[in-house]
Amino acid sequence: MRNYTISVIPGDGIGKEVMPEGIRVLERAASLYGFTIAQKWQDFACCDYYAKHGQMMPDDWKAQIGKPDAIFFGAVGWPNTVPDHVSLWGSLLQFRREYDQYVNLRPVRLMPGVPCPLVGREPGDIDFWVVRENTEGEYSSVGGKMFPGTDREIVIQETVMTRHGTDRVLRYAFDLAATRDRKHVTSATKSNGIAITMPWWDERVEEMAKNYPTVTHDKYHIDILTAQFVLNPDRFDVVVASNLFGDILSDLGPACTGTIGVAPSGNINPDGTHPSLFEPVHGSAPDIAGKGIANPVGQIWSAAMMLEHLGEADAAAAIMRAVETVLAEPGLRTGDLKGKANTEQCGKAIADAL
Amino acid sequence: MRNYTISVIPGDGIGKEVMPEGIRVLERAASLYGFTIAQKWQDFACCDYYAKHGQMMPDDWKAQIGKPDAIFFGAVGWPNTVPDHVSLWGSLLQFRREYDQYVNLRPVRLMPGVPCPLVGREPGDIDFWVVRENTEGEYSSVGGKMFPGTDREIVIQETVMTRHGTDRVLRYAFDLAATRDRKHVTSATKSNGIAITMPWWDERVEEMAKNYPTVTHDKYHIDILTAQFVLNPDRFDVVVASNLFGDILSDLGPACTGTIGVAPSGNINPDGTHPSLFEPVHGSAPDIAGKGIANPVGQIWSAAMMLEHLGEADAAAAIMRAVETVLAEPGLRTGDLKGKANTEQCGKAIADAL
Ligand SMILES: CC(C)[C@H](C(=O)O)[C@@H](O)C(=O)O
Ligand SMILES: CC(C)[C@H](C(=O)O)[C@@H](O)C(=O)O
Repeated sequence: MRNYTISVIPGDGIGKEVMPEGIRVLERAASLYGFTIAQKWQDFACCDYYAKHGQMMPDDWKAQIGKPDAIFFGAVGWPNTVPDHVSLWGSLLQFRREYDQYVNLRPVRLMPGVPCPLVGREPGDIDFWVVRENTEGEYSSVGGKMFPGTDREIVIQETVMTRHGTDRVLRYAFDLAATRDRKHVTSATKSNGIAITMPWWDERVEEMAKNYPTVTHDKYHIDILTAQFVLNPDRFDVVVASNLFGDILSDLGPACTGTIGVAPSGNINPDGTHPSLFEPVHGSAPDIAGKGIANPVGQIWSAAMMLEHLGEADAAAAIMRAVETVLAEPGLRTGDLKGKANTEQCGKAIADAL
Repeated sequence: MRNYTISVIPGDGIGKEVMPEGIRVLERAASLYGFTIAQKWQDFACCDYYAKHGQMMPDDWKAQIGKPDAIFFGAVGWPNTVPDHVSLWGSLLQFRREYDQYVNLRPVRLMPGVPCPLVGREPGDIDFWVVRENTEGEYSSVGGKMFPGTDREIVIQETVMTRHGTDRVLRYAFDLAATRDRKHVTSATKSNGIAITMPWWDERVEEMAKNYPTVTHDKYHIDILTAQFVLNPDRFDVVVASNLFGDILSDLGPACTGTIGVAPSGNINPDGTHPSLFEPVHGSAPDIAGKGIANPVGQIWSAAMMLEHLGEADAAAAIMRAVETVLAEPGLRTGDLKGKANTEQCGKAIADAL
């Protein structure tokens, strides 16, 4: 018997509504595929916790989380009560950094039943990965203000890239491309405008590429790359990007395939020295929270990514087949996809389809 | 008689091919609308100049340009011979900064005859402006490397925002929105991740908004904003953004309306203390340069923006009508729009349609 322990952190807003559906499908997959999933639910990393304690997580959050095989995360943020940069830096962004989850991996795949906003694209046409650097780069806390509150006010924020941090995510991207049919890496850059970090990023890409003679590569400046996502999304196989550029591309990519409501992501520590974290791409969605109508597919697809990561590839593949089956049925998918189901009905349908 | 002097800088690649068509249309508009345009052509700010002189522009470029009423620019860059960051920082980005062209203004408009990649969108549905900060922010030359060439290598690039630089571009955006029907400003931010500059940007937006009681405003994080450009482009009226975010949005926006091949831009010094510069959004396009097939509409639309800026609103409007007429005719538009014309034929057709 394979036994896994996961830390379950639902977070805020619709995070709390889609998490039970993720768990439902996980439990069903476990019973069908012969493994167990022990759950340790955490009540922190959410704005309710902040309201009580004035911080997003207890000081000993690492001890409380312990050493799970993975973290299953919902969505965090409730800007009406806690500014986003406080809630995010105090939770999700802290996990990414302190657990050294240096790869943020997000599929961009056109699914049946998800109406594509791009003319003439069919399921199968769009199928690539965004590999995002997830610990450094533009998301730094280094910088500050001068002359605050005056007309001379100056605000500085530093982008910090290291060879250590850059090379390892590039390596992951090239490794991933090497396992795929098309074996192609596209690097997101902006070396024509961002004149210090990005020309250097380009150099690191060229260096890394030398180790992968069977993998082809090219680069696009981020401005034209976003345009290419819309105009030629079938062109991509593995797209590797800095923290900020990856953030942008991994929302834009799912939008080009219809909705970010179904997109999953893995915050991965490939070395296995810390737990990896799996979460939907969507946020806590205050506008629809509390209504029970959120689409649970992002959470469920994240469960599949988590199982894949844990080595349960068959169960992961089965979940993806169940997701595809349910998405193709208007009666079973949620209202954002012009379906008729609520969150729970959609989650149950996927568990049943397993 | 109204007499204007413009500095003409064709630049590299297809810049040299589309410029004559821009000039053709300008001259025709001048003769029809009763003004003159004196042209001063410059052979610098291109990679040919770099090949001869080892720099993109002469030391006395400002004196050579003199005091034109505007600068009409093609496209610069030829990465096979000069790295982009060298060619751009040595020309276009230098103009923007030294002429204090602090607004980069770009329309996003769905035109007849330009096939829209988004499902179900018609001309008229998408019509907004991107107002981009154009002199500071993420495009700074401040930063550097530590431990270069070693495993400990660290590269730092600073984003520098000033109240002076931020407020004036926000003011421009709100002023522009106040002249429009919908009177709405959308701010591009990333205050949940970029924790120093972007929360401050949000504050400046709120401050500025107080001066405009008739203008509504909202904000989106850049990741979800790019998604919204694809999913709900009809939602926007005036989008204001930092230098990098504006760069991205003003390529993505035109892509959502079919092609960046027709998009124009103004690099504007609203105070009139220096000349403003008008250029197509597309680059020098080495892949199609030299074939005479580039689409001249971006250059011609830029001519219309320039005339509007000079106060020749009637002539500008007439050019736009001529552009729309020609774009609607497959025989007259260029191959990138599935038309049959080459660059010169398309330019002549627009001049004739005037
Ligand atoms: C060529 C490049 C430096 C430039 C920019 O990033 O500003 C271009 O993309 C633009 O938008 O004008
Ligand atoms: C919420 C935010 C800080 C986060 C990010 O920018 O990384 C989110 O957009 C994501 O992509 O996971």
